[in-house]
Amino acid sequence: MRDDAILLLSCPDRPGLVAEISNFIHRNRGNIVALDEHVDAGEDAVFFMRVAWDLRDFLIPRDALAAAVADLVRPFDPLEQQLHFTKDRPRLALFVSKASHCLYDLLARHESGELDVDIPLIVSNHETLRRGAERFGVPFHVFPITPATKATQEREELALLRDHGVDTVVLARYMQVLTDELVAALPATINIHHSFLPAFVGARPYRQAFERGVKVVGATSHYVTAQLDEGPIIAQDVMPVTHRDGVADLVRKGRDLEKTVLARAVWHHVRRRVLTHGRRTVVFD
Amino acid sequence: MRDDAILLLSCPDRPGLVAEISNFIHRNRGNIVALDEHVDAGEDAVFFMRVAWDLRDFLIPRDALAAAVADLVRPFDPLEQQLHFTKDRPRLALFVSKASHCLYDLLARHESGELDVDIPLIVSNHETLRRGAERFGVPFHVFPITPATKATQEREELALLRDHGVDTVVLARYMQVLTDELVAALPATINIHHSFLPAFVGARPYRQAFERGVKVVGATSHYVTAQLDEGPIIAQDVMPVTHRDGVADLVRKGRDLEKTVLARAVWHHVRRRVLTHGRRTVVFD
Amino acid sequence: MRDDAILLLSCPDRPGLVAEISNFIHRNRGNIVALDEHVDAGEDAVFFMRVAWDLRDFLIPRDALAAAVADLVRPFDPLEQQLHFTKDRPRLALFVSKASHCLYDLLARHESGELDVDIPLIVSNHETLRRGAERFGVPFHVFPITPATKATQEREELALLRDHGVDTVVLARYMQVLTDELVAALPATINIHHSFLPAFVGARPYRQAFERGVKVVGATSHYVTAQLDEGPIIAQDVMPVTHRDGVADLVRKGRDLEKTVLARAVWHHVRRRVLTHGRRTVVFD
Amino acid sequence: MRDDAILLLSCPDRPGLVAEISNFIHRNRGNIVALDEHVDAGEDAVFFMRVAWDLRDFLIPRDALAAAVADLVRPFDPLEQQLHFTKDRPRLALFVSKASHCLYDLLARHESGELDVDIPLIVSNHETLRRGAERFGVPFHVFPITPATKATQEREELALLRDHGVDTVVLARYMQVLTDELVAALPATINIHHSFLPAFVGARPYRQAFERGVKVVGATSHYVTAQLDEGPIIAQDVMPVTHRDGVADLVRKGRDLEKTVLARAVWHHVRRRVLTHGRRTVVFD
Repeated sequence: MRDDAILLLSCPDRPGLVAEISNFIHRNRGNIVALDEHVDAGEDAVFFMRVAWDLRDFLIPRDALAAAVADLVRPFDPLEQQLHFTKDRPRLALFVSKASHCLYDLLARHESGELDVDIPLIVSNHETLRRGAERFGVPFHVFPITPATKATQEREELALLRDHGVDTVVLARYMQVLTDELVAALPATINIHHSFLPAFVGARPYRQAFERGVKVVGATSHYVTAQLDEGPIIAQDVMPVTHRDGVADLVRKGRDLEKTVLARAVWHHVRRRVLTHGRRTVVFD
Repeated sequence: MRDDAILLLSCPDRPGLVAEISNFIHRNRGNIVALDEHVDAGEDAVFFMRVAWDLRDFLIPRDALAAAVADLVRPFDPLEQQLHFTKDRPRLALFVSKASHCLYDLLARHESGELDVDIPLIVSNHETLRRGAERFGVPFHVFPITPATKATQEREELALLRDHGVDTVVLARYMQVLTDELVAALPATINIHHSFLPAFVGARPYRQAFERGVKVVGATSHYVTAQLDEGPIIAQDVMPVTHRDGVADLVRKGRDLEKTVLARAVWHHVRRRVLTHGRRTVVFD
Repeated sequence: MRDDAILLLSCPDRPGLVAEISNFIHRNRGNIVALDEHVDAGEDAVFFMRVAWDLRDFLIPRDALAAAVADLVRPFDPLEQQLHFTKDRPRLALFVSKASHCLYDLLARHESGELDVDIPLIVSNHETLRRGAERFGVPFHVFPITPATKATQEREELALLRDHGVDTVVLARYMQVLTDELVAALPATINIHHSFLPAFVGARPYRQAFERGVKVVGATSHYVTAQLDEGPIIAQDVMPVTHRDGVADLVRKGRDLEKTVLARAVWHHVRRRVLTHGRRTVVFD
Repeated sequence: MRDDAILLLSCPDRPGLVAEISNFIHRNRGNIVALDEHVDAGEDAVFFMRVAWDLRDFLIPRDALAAAVADLVRPFDPLEQQLHFTKDRPRLALFVSKASHCLYDLLARHESGELDVDIPLIVSNHETLRRGAERFGVPFHVFPITPATKATQEREELALLRDHGVDTVVLARYMQVLTDELVAALPATINIHHSFLPAFVGARPYRQAFERGVKVVGATSHYVTAQLDEGPIIAQDVMPVTHRDGVADLVRKGRDLEKTVLARAVWHHVRRRVLTHGRRTVVFD
């Protein structure tokens, strides 16, 4: 198991940023194992960087590193900064409703070691997938939601996530709109929407796609923000369809997209490869 | 050169349609060289068929065939019927503005024989591409459009199309909205829109795509109807993009999609493989 | 549940085939629900057809249909003919070794009802996946293979398949070469090869792909014949890769291709949509 | 027009490379506008880097930069180093035979400004495309090749390329095998092969693909080396095909792949984004 530090940083662009950061690592005897940078071509030039370095001979002890990095980047007026250690495994909660394909796909990737995380719990608003979840040995918590109970249930869910030290929530076809309060209180939250956003926002996207007669259908995984289906997109993919595909075929084919696209977004997130900037993401792959 | 008849038909579904049509051809000594059928899974079951047969030993003479086919299909209450002969080459007019990529692409396919049609003229609202068009030996007609002149110019264009026996108009990045009057008077008209419809309707779709932060961009070729960007889609395709792609990159990459998708739609149309039904198409490939 | 008959037929092409077959169905009061035909453009024109019709009002009883169809098609000198009833669920045996992704994917599709088949057993040459299989309630049979035991073990496997009425074997990353004797005795057998065949035949295709520096990797699902990796291809798909992808990344990304491509091939096969002709397949989708 | 320097470098990996190079640029008042690095995961860790910086305020004059960079990188034991200036436009020669699609595609991209290069000449072994080339105002030179004349003609071609200061040769469906002597003497040379290499090496790949019954066809653009079809791959792409596609359809569909893939490879090459290492390329996009 590697023992690397990963710094994710965005700040206004100016000369010398790469030199200063790589010097900091080098003079403290860190060996850079990956470095990616990007300058966004928008109105204000924004600099994005991901740098990972080996901590074996690094002079700054792990528990002093956050402060040292903060000192380093403070003059850059950072928009966002994250410091991660590969030894700290991400802790994920999966939220599901009745559809099993994304759940099984993530659990199978977890079991095989492809997804190098802990999954301490699954949350659902239905009993449907309890057996599937428990088969894989993951505790399954049901919080039925009605308009009357929604606020209380969400508070319970939040408490449970905190108890389990969850740092990432994955909405794996969770068919309940979250309240703004919950969205604001959650850690990083990743959703899968079953269309190629921004086409076919909202419910029943495959029916909409069928009626519009499109020749390609898609799926979109994005961070959850207060604006439904408007969060920064992490991954998208599409597949061709023809007039032979009825709504049921689109749903069936779409499931393959959904599980693959969600898994890809989760993978990039837990490898600490994603920075956001407004409605855009930088995904260093 | 083959001498085939092609029948495109849509009608309410009922038992025996394939048998009746194939019997008609068979008993008149036609050999079916291609037969495709489709029943649409919508609320009303609609039957679509494309059948092509060799006319060499066919008993019904060419000039009596339209009437015979009309007699055959009348009891089916057809929604749409088209009878074509492969010996009649489609006659296309290309409409362009300033961007050359779709124009050159279609002209090169035409010159190489891939696109087996006649292109008697090119129409533009600008002089920009005159030299490009004339290089390929195709007459180039300019109709500058202002709000004041639009109606008159469109009538001139229409007269020109009729003079040249044009049966298909291709809007190859023609950046003028057609009036409803022109749309109603035109023969089959195919447009290319530089986005994955229904996402990013209207102007500047690549800028919209950039700002939304999508990870895939697309292009859509559709028949033109009175509703802008709402016509039945014939072909769509997409390509992945990343945060590294600025608006200029999306425009550059998008050109490859636009020319390929438009050419594919034109190819299917002139091979008489497309039927429409509301906002949907059946493309027999 | 629909009660349809499905006829798959290939024979030398000649005029009137569609008319004769559709007449047979129509005059016996069958309603054609799907009809696809294809004439292969090879040296000898071969006619392929798939036709499905509703048996509700059909005049010929189910147990007399095979004989009636045999009488119908005999004059066509059929190369291949298959008659299926949608009420007869296909019975699949899955063969696996140590990799779980294809197994879990197929079992999850089965459990959700997407794959409308029976899976009476799983066969493996290792104990590794026993727990995964038994979680889904499917009996798991282990036949360790050594050069000395191979012939005996294969005979045991074959007997087991017969006892369970298996009509389709799926090699879901089964990492043992089958003997020619077993291949000859098996019912229809579908394999997944982890490369875009015919590139990278044989072992370690991802390492080969890495070393060759390809920019796209693929997966191939094919029927198993005596020639390893040479059977008729049912489905293929690919994904782009870059210099950033090491062998481990290719393996990881490839798993998504493998499970999707295998599932697609199995789906087409069990829907009775595939005919073979030499090393080629006709897949009516 | 930007005035940037671009350094492409590969060398054995060791700590501090990024810091040293970015310091060199920074302390000489260059502003880094793009920096990409990659460490190859093969047996020997190899470091690859592309860095571009703005020369406006740079302290080292342009004509002293090559020597300064050589001094900088010498201690790194470079495997390959290239220094380019964006103000120096690449000079391309296109080699063609009879097929026009890649030629027209490149000329149209050149005329529209997408491909920011000079194309001083076109070389062919046939007269066929003279008119097409001259339409675009590019001199067209024909060197008919027979076994007897091949060596002499190649020497003439080489002399012509040198006279025109050509630094990149593009084989745009040039259907003549180059002698080893010519390959050794040519500057960087890019070929398009009409298959997904390493599948279907050699002649008639679409016929081979048809006979093998593949469900995907591809195209590959690669640098030319003495081993035919074995050079480092720059770009590949594929498209799905079905049993409905005969050899002529594969050829037709393949042309779209060929022109797009070749254009993409040329674009990356002339933007100085490609490094090679054995049979692999690093393409910084």
